[in-house]
Amino acid sequence: MDMEKLVALCRRRGFIFQSSEIYGGINGCWDYGPLGVELKRNIKEAWWNDMVRNPPPAPDGDEISMVGVDCSIIMNPKVWEASGHVGGFKDPMVSCKFCRKLYRADQVWEQVVVSAWVTSLLDLYDPSSEKGVTGLDLKKWANGKGKRLAPNLALVRNPEVTLSWISEAAARQDGKLHFADAKQWLGYMATEQRAAGPLVTPCPACGGDLSEPRAFNLMFMTHVGAVQDEASIAYLRPETAQGIFVNFRNVLDSTRLKLPFGIAQVGKAFRNEINPRNYIFRSREFEQMEIEFFCHPDDSMKWYQYWRDVRIRWYTQLGIRSEKLRPREQGKEELAHYSIGTTDIEYLFPFSEEPQELEGVAHRGAYDLTQHAKFSGKDLSYFDEQLWEREKIKYPEPKAAQEAKSKEPYRFMPHVIEPSAGADRFTLAVLCEAYAEDEIGGEARTVMRFHPRLAPVKAAILPLVNKEGMPEKAHALYRELKRSWNVFYDDKGAIGRRYRRQDEAGTPYCVTIDGQSLQDNTVTMRDRDTTQQLRVPIAAVADELRKRLEPGREI
Amino acid sequence: MDMEKLVALCRRRGFIFQSSEIYGGINGCWDYGPLGVELKRNIKEAWWNDMVRNPPPAPDGDEISMVGVDCSIIMNPKVWEASGHVGGFKDPMVSCKFCRKLYRADQVWEQVVVSAWVTSLLDLYDPSSEKGVTGLDLKKWANGKGKRLAPNLALVRNPEVTLSWISEAAARQDGKLHFADAKQWLGYMATEQRAAGPLVTPCPACGGDLSEPRAFNLMFMTHVGAVQDEASIAYLRPETAQGIFVNFRNVLDSTRLKLPFGIAQVGKAFRNEINPRNYIFRSREFEQMEIEFFCHPDDSMKWYQYWRDVRIRWYTQLGIRSEKLRPREQGKEELAHYSIGTTDIEYLFPFSEEPQELEGVAHRGAYDLTQHAKFSGKDLSYFDEQLWEREKIKYPEPKAAQEAKSKEPYRFMPHVIEPSAGADRFTLAVLCEAYAEDEIGGEARTVMRFHPRLAPVKAAILPLVNKEGMPEKAHALYRELKRSWNVFYDDKGAIGRRYRRQDEAGTPYCVTIDGQSLQDNTVTMRDRDTTQQLRVPIAAVADELRKRLEPGREI
Repeated sequence: MDMEKLVALCRRRGFIFQSSEIYGGINGCWDYGPLGVELKRNIKEAWWNDMVRNPPPAPDGDEISMVGVDCSIIMNPKVWEASGHVGGFKDPMVSCKFCRKLYRADQVWEQVVVSAWVTSLLDLYDPSSEKGVTGLDLKKWANGKGKRLAPNLALVRNPEVTLSWISEAAARQDGKLHFADAKQWLGYMATEQRAAGPLVTPCPACGGDLSEPRAFNLMFMTHVGAVQDEASIAYLRPETAQGIFVNFRNVLDSTRLKLPFGIAQVGKAFRNEINPRNYIFRSREFEQMEIEFFCHPDDSMKWYQYWRDVRIRWYTQLGIRSEKLRPREQGKEELAHYSIGTTDIEYLFPFSEEPQELEGVAHRGAYDLTQHAKFSGKDLSYFDEQLWEREKIKYPEPKAAQEAKSKEPYRFMPHVIEPSAGADRFTLAVLCEAYAEDEIGGEARTVMRFHPRLAPVKAAILPLVNKEGMPEKAHALYRELKRSWNVFYDDKGAIGRRYRRQDEAGTPYCVTIDGQSLQDNTVTMRDRDTTQQLRVPIAAVADELRKRLEPGREI
Repeated sequence: MDMEKLVALCRRRGFIFQSSEIYGGINGCWDYGPLGVELKRNIKEAWWNDMVRNPPPAPDGDEISMVGVDCSIIMNPKVWEASGHVGGFKDPMVSCKFCRKLYRADQVWEQVVVSAWVTSLLDLYDPSSEKGVTGLDLKKWANGKGKRLAPNLALVRNPEVTLSWISEAAARQDGKLHFADAKQWLGYMATEQRAAGPLVTPCPACGGDLSEPRAFNLMFMTHVGAVQDEASIAYLRPETAQGIFVNFRNVLDSTRLKLPFGIAQVGKAFRNEINPRNYIFRSREFEQMEIEFFCHPDDSMKWYQYWRDVRIRWYTQLGIRSEKLRPREQGKEELAHYSIGTTDIEYLFPFSEEPQELEGVAHRGAYDLTQHAKFSGKDLSYFDEQLWEREKIKYPEPKAAQEAKSKEPYRFMPHVIEPSAGADRFTLAVLCEAYAEDEIGGEARTVMRFHPRLAPVKAAILPLVNKEGMPEKAHALYRELKRSWNVFYDDKGAIGRRYRRQDEAGTPYCVTIDGQSLQDNTVTMRDRDTTQQLRVPIAAVADELRKRLEPGREI
């Protein structure tokens, strides 16, 4: 499958539109259309149901405790000092001194090598020829295509000077132009005068000189209140997790929960990505589904494994084929400094050769609660009252001071396991996974093979023709079914075309009211994947659908 | 009921917390806790189900067409030029020249009259005395309490000068201090020297001089990308509606919908309110549930009435008593300039003497689509193909030019009816409406009488004692029920206290496993509102709950 076909289908059928498209869009933001909004709602609903309301049992078979929260996107800015986002949420960036475009320093070379001007420059090489590229070839390119494709490249800005120092540098070798690699060669082309410093890195867009890497805060900033000064600065949250940590004490006090337990949140987060790309995979505005699971430090590795396994199983049970899914334990050098271990759950998207992160399951130790306790001055530790109650008989009739001391060993900072999933990324994986082209009876079709729980429309109700009493029967059935599910009524066009349209929308079942329906009150139910049709009584359609759409939901 | 009790219960039981509370909060932002998030989810889910997936039939009994979208919060800034928000989304504001606080000009006097310093000043009046307040009283106050409460009030800053011109002004009357009203009297106290201009309006916080009213943009501003300049400015959407309008063409093209139809959206919106107040009623970050219903201009009044009636009925069917709910048709002078009519659906909150807006149902004419067509240069008109197909037989075998001309009368800009509801406001109304204090068997209790569809927890499973096999039976039932509903397991404390806790959480049913359960596999089901108990077989609990929680959902 190629991405372009999927993107075209998503736009044509109303899954995903560019945000503000009629105004030329806005980079890194996307809108979900009528089918997309139902798909994404089903994904978030499945997550909430399977992780919060009805999570899988603990390793010992016990129930586990989960609750949800829904926090504001704009929070007190001190939250981001404590979390390290204000100081540390930074990627080194480089910017072009000519066109002012910005790139992440660690990604810029990837973009240079596939840029239009480098592709054009490489075309000068004739692999069948021995002689290689001469200075004259380069000068010709600089005055021709180069002017259009890379106007700010040193070679284009000033071919004589640039070529002259290159030929000097090359002459100092053996009279021929030798380069360590393509990167060095492009660096030569981009450097007008060789000074003491390193070779210039050229801008992928215009060939101009890129700056030295510098820090750049990925949080969107705004001001709260009327005065725009230092004191009114606030940020759009770059993750939902911190809303959970700062509410830890409030949740504990209001629910009487005992460790271990989890707090979950679904919501938008924002990162001012320099280079949003790959459709809805890396956007500036996105939605997260995060759990912070609090436990005793001694049990933390057990829960780390539990959540890693639960989360992988969840994806496969919603239809992601296991060969495209990969858990990858991060190496020591990748880990955040506070993390004891992190597993990325990755999916092989069609836009990349390597699997990309769908979700990170991180063992964050006591880092977050410790930071917030320090920055807020509030006690965020946990007191294991049950254990203390059992053991305090060792201290009969304690005096207050003794009692406080005796409690010390039962008070600790919980450890945290964080399964953090991207709702948009999983939506994209579901779309990629569902997309298929096949043939029925010699006719090609495109079909979205969504898991029935996730399919935006569960069933389409189709009167074969728009007369002879069929519409009445079809409407009555539609009215019955839409009380339970998102169903669709369609009476336009040939039945084959209507089936094909539902296949593209990923509707698992088409129910057709035909001539026979008028005689014996039966209808056909067509299966999206097999295209086989089953004849069932109209009165049995709801039950048949329920059986297929809502089998046991255990994961 | 008073608000303070409700606010305390909401914090104590985990409905609503102040955002970032451990850092002192952030004004105008709130977090939903474990019970609150379920309540609000149920509200949004009820709305989506009843308005989008299964809307009530049209006046003629036909089905109506509704689809959803989910648009980004950050949109192309041109959207807000077209909508008038950049130019016009402004409230005249006044700011204090001393303490820099900002107030909405139309609300400042309300705040002045209840301020601490005015209250203190009014205390000088002795209603039992004839003599009134003397200049000496005022001077004493200015040098005492006034210094602390209103340090920047003219009377406090410079009592001699202020009192001197007041007594001159008063002397010009009849030797006594006469004032038209309290407003004028306070204006005198706030004006250090009477110049040609009007009396000063004092700051509610410090008594200082307020500025003349000036415009203030209520949208939160940010920058997208690395460069913070004019070109990178973007806004957080102040309403979800515009996301629908700019997607009108895309939705039309991708769904083949015919007029009339509605597009719905649920999502966050942001307004940089100068004076957020009344708990979650007027906050800076809030969630909307909006429909834009597109129809032929000739039918628009019919649909305006339809949506007004449907929306009022929805609130009453979810438990809002009709005597607290009031539809109020806006007067001509209140209407937005483009609006043909607007009905505010108002609720009598306990914090106000007057009912306050829960939802506005507005007839917006063709204003929004016309504006976006103009600003984007895109054709957003609707072509009524069905009508044209029927009528074009009048023009047999038309040439292309003729055909285009013949289509003209069937192309028009749809009118829009907008039912725009606030999810947080309705949540607050539901909380206010549910709150009750009563007595059972002589014991006082607080009970949240939520509609069963909205109740955060549907049932609590309570083993009477934590032994004798009761926990095993209780756990098995809990595991069965939590596959369908949000249910709660509680085995801590006396059964009476556990009932009381569930009453406060608004849980409609408590299921208790007791001694008899071990003998005959029956349990008691306690009704929250009547507190009556019914004995049913364990195996029948799920069906009994379903019958009570999910009766026919038509509205």
